[in-house]
Amino acid sequence: MTPALPAAALDQLFFAARTHNGFSGPVSDEDLRQIFDLMKWGPTSANSCPARFVFIRSKEAKERLRPCLMPGNVDKTMAAPVTALIAYDPTFYEHLPRLFPHADAKSWFVGKEEFARHTAFLNAALQGAYLIVAARALGFDCGPMSGFDAARVDQAFFAGTPVKSFMLVNLGHGDPAKLYPRGPRFAFEEVCRVD
Amino acid sequence: MTPALPAAALDQLFFAARTHNGFSGPVSDEDLRQIFDLMKWGPTSANSCPARFVFIRSKEAKERLRPCLMPGNVDKTMAAPVTALIAYDPTFYEHLPRLFPHADAKSWFVGKEEFARHTAFLNAALQGAYLIVAARALGFDCGPMSGFDAARVDQAFFAGTPVKSFMLVNLGHGDPAKLYPRGPRFAFEEVCRVD
Repeated sequence: MTPALPAAALDQLFFAARTHNGFSGPVSDEDLRQIFDLMKWGPTSANSCPARFVFIRSKEAKERLRPCLMPGNVDKTMAAPVTALIAYDPTFYEHLPRLFPHADAKSWFVGKEEFARHTAFLNAALQGAYLIVAARALGFDCGPMSGFDAARVDQAFFAGTPVKSFMLVNLGHGDPAKLYPRGPRFAFEEVCRVD
Repeated sequence: MTPALPAAALDQLFFAARTHNGFSGPVSDEDLRQIFDLMKWGPTSANSCPARFVFIRSKEAKERLRPCLMPGNVDKTMAAPVTALIAYDPTFYEHLPRLFPHADAKSWFVGKEEFARHTAFLNAALQGAYLIVAARALGFDCGPMSGFDAARVDQAFFAGTPVKSFMLVNLGHGDPAKLYPRGPRFAFEEVCRVD
């Protein structure tokens, strides 16, 4: 049986990891590749891998993002070294002959638009969470957000495609001085049962 | 700056971790509590924590699940020590005065049924991914699935509530002899850009 990771690793991934509001760099292209090359191994239904990513770093791209943000998210996002925009491709099934070659999985989705959209959103959300955990595992801090105008972001970053945005994650090295108090969590008994 | 976790930890979480099809136990109540107490710290929008969990272990509960499963998922799920059923509560916002006490976040969702449903599903999916990674971090293997009749599962496990199922995760110690070949992943350039 595989042992649990050491306590310091569990701290870095979950127990001590926090949603950060202030960040410093650097976050290089090589760092972004390393985060992707780790998170990409997280499981998705039929290996569908429906998430699509834009790593927003340049001044020009940040300015494209600015008017799409909720007011409370503007300053921290404009200041972050990189903001990962995470979206899903509802036509992901076109790639299944390559990604899931041992079954005709494409046929499960063709002509079933709502089922394909549901599958794309669910699995891209899983991949968004894998990105957060992978970034933490590699020593970065995250500031995930869903407070933005997704339709406007789609127009600014995915015009002419069917891709739909659903999450932003600021990336960098967090400033502990800018943390808010941590929110409480449910106890096991409140949200779990063992049947 | 925080260093990356050691290579063995990255292997356990992502690089070498696989979706398993055969499992052995034991997975105790205390193990389930430890997995929950780790994954619960993963971030959700406005600390909404909308996921709800049933850990299906008894023969009776497994038999309730059986007719809801796609044929290809029956044998491995019936044999797994525990199957985690993950669902979302679209009325999660009732708990926000306690979970997110510094703003009136409940008012963002009351009367906005589709926005509340979207937020619940997205964030519960993130929590589903945290559960997978947390279980791996604690030395367990996972077999996530979305091939089941969710409406029938809701009737069998959440009757009389608004809670909606979306994912199953078999849990235990995986049998490497029952692994399938690993599916390929996209290259960075295929699904990412740096703007």
